[in-house]
Order: sequence, then structure tokens, then C-alpha cells
Amino acid sequence: MAKKISRNTFIMEHSPSIHSYAAVVGKLEGAGPLGKYFDEVENDAYFGQKTWEKGESELMKRTLKKAISKGSLSPAEIDYMFAGDLLNQCISSTYGLKDFDIPIFGIYGACSTMSEGLSLASLMTDSGIGGKVAAVTSSHFCSAERQFRFPLSYGGVRTPTAQWTCTASGAVILSAKAAPPYVRAVTIGKIVDFGVTDANNMGAAMAPAATYVIQTFLEDTAMSVSDFDAIVTGDLGLVGSRLLIKLLQHENIDISSNHLDCGLMMFDRENQDVHAGGSGCGCSGSVLCGYFLDKIRSGELKNILFCATGALMSPTASQQGESIPSISHAVFISNQSH
Amino acid sequence: MAKKISRNTFIMEHSPSIHSYAAVVGKLEGAGPLGKYFDEVENDAYFGQKTWEKGESELMKRTLKKAISKGSLSPAEIDYMFAGDLLNQCISSTYGLKDFDIPIFGIYGACSTMSEGLSLASLMTDSGIGGKVAAVTSSHFCSAERQFRFPLSYGGVRTPTAQWTCTASGAVILSAKAAPPYVRAVTIGKIVDFGVTDANNMGAAMAPAATYVIQTFLEDTAMSVSDFDAIVTGDLGLVGSRLLIKLLQHENIDISSNHLDCGLMMFDRENQDVHAGGSGCGCSGSVLCGYFLDKIRSGELKNILFCATGALMSPTASQQGESIPSISHAVFISNQSH
Repeated sequence: MAKKISRNTFIMEHSPSIHSYAAVVGKLEGAGPLGKYFDEVENDAYFGQKTWEKGESELMKRTLKKAISKGSLSPAEIDYMFAGDLLNQCISSTYGLKDFDIPIFGIYGACSTMSEGLSLASLMTDSGIGGKVAAVTSSHFCSAERQFRFPLSYGGVRTPTAQWTCTASGAVILSAKAAPPYVRAVTIGKIVDFGVTDANNMGAAMAPAATYVIQTFLEDTAMSVSDFDAIVTGDLGLVGSRLLIKLLQHENIDISSNHLDCGLMMFDRENQDVHAGGSGCGCSGSVLCGYFLDKIRSGELKNILFCATGALMSPTASQQGESIPSISHAVFISNQSH
Repeated sequence: MAKKISRNTFIMEHSPSIHSYAAVVGKLEGAGPLGKYFDEVENDAYFGQKTWEKGESELMKRTLKKAISKGSLSPAEIDYMFAGDLLNQCISSTYGLKDFDIPIFGIYGACSTMSEGLSLASLMTDSGIGGKVAAVTSSHFCSAERQFRFPLSYGGVRTPTAQWTCTASGAVILSAKAAPPYVRAVTIGKIVDFGVTDANNMGAAMAPAATYVIQTFLEDTAMSVSDFDAIVTGDLGLVGSRLLIKLLQHENIDISSNHLDCGLMMFDRENQDVHAGGSGCGCSGSVLCGYFLDKIRSGELKNILFCATGALMSPTASQQGESIPSISHAVFISNQSH
């Protein structure tokens, strides 16, 4: 079973394998620098459905289906799953996954969902209480914009610090088999609140949570930044990434040369009008499952620390003057099992 | 570690103990038949805060604080926790729990949240990857009404099948110690959808999920209804409870003589104007923590099967004509560890 070495950090005993994984994205994401890495690019924002919300459910459904088929599995072979998304009451997950007939734990971690689901699936698989356990998440630009900000038809002008919610989904299936990529350790985050209240600057709100979890992971495991090919954050974007590097420098941790942010990787900021970068549960979910996991499987990358980051606010909370608390969980993924 | 005996069901190896627990409720709940069982009854719907949402966060904070102090613990002794609620983006949990400084996994299971959190906390504690693990949830009539239905000031007339979201919160802390109440087994539910589309009749929408999980638990464990002092559902209310009993009778399972529903127990339906009964994450959470756990600890009750039930819809989904899928997880709680 996983060994708890601190309040936050668990080292896996058998290092569960990410048996299979898949990423499906929308048109803009497919046209970005990572386009060729995704399993499927869908040009129809509705994914063949009548509403964006139903489209997002369809996106998540396709992604899990793809991960299952890439792993030569059937839905009946998945023991249970963790799933969550950004929409109120996590309806993308509910309607997207209900027909799989797989026992499910709903989770909510905003854009940290892929880290959270992967952490829980890994802990349970490593402790012998999983067989094949899936973790799934998604986000959709159109459903998120109208829920969190303005209806798209309103044509609101976005601030320079605003990020672009990715239309994207990622799914992983964990198993106890011996094949890379392996999950070696996880650090569970806590809610961090530095008092940022600007809902158009979520990168800044989330940077302290990433700082906390990266620092805690490194201290708990006595590993150093240079042990990792990349320290990967979810969707801090340009503003949040700069802040993260500065915050960690204050702690004498320099990640400037090997930090990557999925939100910055997803788009070509010069030629795609996304302001500070991509965001959304599906951003880090799809970049992990589309880009990183293949490279870890092949050995091109040896070790990454994957830290999806979530801003835990709601429009109601923002309207009531609340700050934006955030969270991030760290997952150490490696080509080697020990 | 917990033994997986089927796709859905785990039998605990060491039967983790519910180390401590607490329930805090609002005025109407305090005036109901169970009023004397709760740790605290607050007459102010705002819980001393400026908005109902902030009040619900305060409610959840007080409940976890109470569970921690009843267990003679400090927040620093809680290893991590599972928390969720009904509000969009689970803000009651975020703002209510952020100052505890405890690592957290956010969960979303609508009104099934107490079953879900208790299941996960039990599985992880029993498998040696917990120390002290908390599970917390809440709901609030005023914040839920205006989010899911109408602003209270609108004065909408409620249908006879409608239920009353309880202003209530429950918190449990699991540990590996040897003292009742014990968690003996859990059955993870799946999403069940019988096509009910009436958001004012959620009991009917949730009854099939409770049917599924109760039937699966009994079949998987080869236990019978008579092994339990009570088979407890979360918030099916009057309509859903009648339906549950009928649906199980079709499967040759008769729970009519020992079924209890927290939503029906919470209020005096004759004298409190709550229509079909109580509902909300905090309904089953507070009835479990206020009423049942003391009776199991003392031995007055030997065994219960606790099945909180959640309707996974959102107003957006309902407006788009979607049905109401639902879920329930079953937790076998006992005075005996084996």
C-alpha cells in the first residue's frame, strides 16, 4: 500500500501504471501547437449535440470511450471511476458518463480535477482496492463562458489577464500492471487563499496553491527540481506562471528552467487570441493525456511532477466580494517504477 | 486493506471506527422530532454572516469544529478530508473549510455526499492510507432554494411532491481505533436514470438509485434485510420512499418494516409545512451524525445500512429537458467490528 510519509504526501509501494489514456479537444485547441498530439480534434463546438452543455458531456463520453478502447478494455472491466468538471453540479460528468454503467465517485476540484482524480485513483489502486480505476475530466469554452462570465452572444471584452477555457477532455485508466507511465507519489493540496478577488486573473489566484504543493512535495520527498524533466502546472497562464516562479524563488526553489504550464503550451499566444493562456479542467487533462504521457511511456521524458491547479470560486461568491481560494495536488509520474 | 468482493462492494478488513462526529442544524430542523439529538441548533438563518451562502459556510465550519473537539482532536491531527455540498462549485465547502489548513479532496455527489465521503474515508483508512480522515457536508434551505428554484422573495408555491432542503450539516472523523461505530462495508453506486424530469419530485428520481445500491449490497454480501435494525435512505421523502419499497418488492426484497428515510425523520410533516419531507446533503448528514451514530455507539442499534441519495441534476440541465440521473452509495455501519 501507499506509504504516508507526511501529512500531505504518499509514496506508492508498487507504483500503479497509467494503463491507458486519451485526450479529445475542440477546434481551437487542435489548431494550436499541440494539435497533433491529441487523439481526436472535433471541429463542431456542439459535438453533434443541441447545446454546448450536452456537447461537453459528449466530449467527455468520447474521451473515456477512447481511453477504454486504447487500453483494449470494455467499460465492464473498469472497476470504478473518479470524475468531475466545471459546470454547476458537475453535469458534464453526470450526463457524459451515466451510460457507461461504471460505479462512480463524483469529485470537484475545479481545474485541479485531473490531479485530484489521478491521485485518488493511484492511492486506491496502489493500496490494492482498485483493479482498473479511471479518472476523467473536461471543460468547454462556450459552456464555461456563459456560466462563469457572460453569454457568448453578449460579446464581452476580455481583460489581458483573462484565460481561455479549453474545450478539451482527458481520461486515464490506472492499473497494477508493470508498464510505464507509473505514478510514484502524490501530494494532496490544501486550500490556499492569498486574497485575490479578480475573477479575470485566476492564474494569480492559483499560483500560491501550486507554490504550496510543489514546495511541500519537494520537502517531503527530499527530491530536487533537477530530478524532473518538467514541473508541470495546470493552467496558471502567463501571469500565474511568472508569479509561481517568483513565489518559489522566495523559498529558494528555482523552477524557472524546467517549468511548463499546460495553459501556455496549449495555444500559440501570438497567433491565437487567448490572452494569458488556456484554462479549464480539460486543459491540463488533455495536455497530460495527449502530450506528456506518451513521452513518459517512450522514455523521452523520465520524470514529471504534474500539478493541475484549481480556482475554487463561483460567480455567486465573487459577487459577494469573496476572494478566490485555490488548490493544487501534485502527482509524480515517471518512466521508472522505482 | 478493504477486500473487493464485487465490482461495487468492499468489505473492510479492520472496520475503521467513526472516531467522532457532529451535527449542527437550523431553526426548523431543531424544532422537528429530532431536535434534541443535534449538537447545536442555530436560530439565525444567516449563522451570523451577511449572506445565506456565507451562513452555510459558517454552518459547515462549526460542524467540523465540533466533530474535531468532540473527538478531543485539533485540526492539525486530521490527515485529510473529503467535503462537498450542493452549491455551484461547492463554495460552502471551500469557504467553510479553507481556514482549517487540512489537505482536502473536494467531492460532488449532490445529496449522496455523506455516503460518498464516508465510503472514501473508510476505504482509505481501512487500507492504511489514512490516519484520521474527515468527511463533511452541508446544505441550506435559503441558498439552495434561490440557486435551484426561485429566490425566496418571489414566494413561489411549492408542489405537494416538493421537498424542503434542510439547513443542516454533518461531519465524521474516521480512525483506525477499536471503538464503535464501525464501518464494515461499502457499496459504490452507479448513476441510475429512470427518465424522471420533474425537478419538484426528486424523491422519485432518486428511488431507483437507492434500489440499485441496496439490492447490490445485499446480493454482494449475502446479507438479508433482517440483519439490519434499519435501512436508512437519505432524502427520498414520502413519494420516493413509497417508490423505493415498491421497486425493491419487485426484486423480492421487502424493506417495508425497517426502512427509515432521513428526509421523513427530520420534520413533523403534519405540523411543519415541508410537503414531501426534507432533503439536501445536510439532511442525511445531520441525521446520521446527530441521531444514528450515538445509537450505534451505545448499542441501542446494532447494524444500519446508510444510503444517502443524490439527484445529479442542475437547473441548466432541467431547462434543456434532461432527465434527473441519481446515485446512492451504501455504507454498512455497526456496533460490532466483525
